[in-house]
Amino acid sequence: MTDDVNNDQSSDNKEQIKNERHKKKSQKQKEKVDAGIAKATEERGIVIVITGNGKGKSTSGFGTVARAVGHGYKAAVVQFIKGQWDCGERNLLQQNGVPFAVMGTGFTWETQDRAADMAAAEEVWAEAKKFLADPQYHVVLLDELTYMLGYDYLNSEEVLDAIRNRPAEQSVVVTGRGAIKPLRDLADTISEIKDEKHAYRAGIKARKGVDW
Amino acid sequence: MTDDVNNDQSSDNKEQIKNERHKKKSQKQKEKVDAGIAKATEERGIVIVITGNGKGKSTSGFGTVARAVGHGYKAAVVQFIKGQWDCGERNLLQQNGVPFAVMGTGFTWETQDRAADMAAAEEVWAEAKKFLADPQYHVVLLDELTYMLGYDYLNSEEVLDAIRNRPAEQSVVVTGRGAIKPLRDLADTISEIKDEKHAYRAGIKARKGVDW
Repeated sequence: MTDDVNNDQSSDNKEQIKNERHKKKSQKQKEKVDAGIAKATEERGIVIVITGNGKGKSTSGFGTVARAVGHGYKAAVVQFIKGQWDCGERNLLQQNGVPFAVMGTGFTWETQDRAADMAAAEEVWAEAKKFLADPQYHVVLLDELTYMLGYDYLNSEEVLDAIRNRPAEQSVVVTGRGAIKPLRDLADTISEIKDEKHAYRAGIKARKGVDW
Repeated sequence: MTDDVNNDQSSDNKEQIKNERHKKKSQKQKEKVDAGIAKATEERGIVIVITGNGKGKSTSGFGTVARAVGHGYKAAVVQFIKGQWDCGERNLLQQNGVPFAVMGTGFTWETQDRAADMAAAEEVWAEAKKFLADPQYHVVLLDELTYMLGYDYLNSEEVLDAIRNRPAEQSVVVTGRGAIKPLRDLADTISEIKDEKHAYRAGIKARKGVDW
């Protein structure tokens, strides 16, 4: 009986010590976060680049669009490459008033026609430029733009200038593998997504509502 | 005049060679992709873990939910930690019929109360378990679950069992830094997002419609 009480007390003490330690650690963390917030004072739209070979680049871009739209802001989407797929996120966002400009060919390794791809890229880029010049858009997603720059389908100087000269309050999200250096230099935020494991390599079929 | 014609012909030739090279490269790429697709034959819901310290984890999870909903599937979201923020993506998805379970405390370093955080975690986990047992949900997003496991706020064996025993057609997306090893082992797909650059560190304020 005495032993039980002692055990209870000792386990209560342990729990208390754990809680105190957590409180101290949290206070330190809070101070650090608060100091960071106090230092970040500049207010303007930013350029976010989501690159790397892992899953989650386009979904991250579309999640940001959903975020903006959910706050009542206007957002626009330009889809390079993957345009012609039946695309769940496009359905939902279009239903919620987001304009889409979609490239007229599928994957480039499907079409195997460089000249046609370049013409299609120029066509959709003309739409993108309009969004990038229009201050009513809080967020513009340029989904899979990186390939257009990497393959020289679009003039990278022209593209980067259009992004650089966008309205001050507008943020731009660029997704795709292999972002070129001048785009990285222009970016305020870069996330590099590493593919650590992929269901596909384990023989699992790409899935509607998850992979597209 | 003859020189001009020759130059034109030579540049035409160069363009043709470039196009041919592109065509061959694309064909190889297509064969590789097609072979991969042919091998991936298993059809079932998957577990996706989006971890790492870079920006884009939650937005990627929410983009996947938008994708599922846009195809007419049902999806559910459980928000650990960030729950009480005014959150654009939640507004939009709730308007489109997605149920949310939201943890009753803010950031843990704000509350500094381990016992209260643990109780709040258990409460929202009870909701999560219902989604994970319900075959009507095609996708369940467990946003920032990783911290609950890393801090031992939830029993990781219980959590992993619930994910493991979910309906066969259901996919689960888990986001947050520092995914623990047993969760990584269970995952079909893991993306590790590296923070290469962040606007915040350059003194730019977090932005409504972009950062939350």
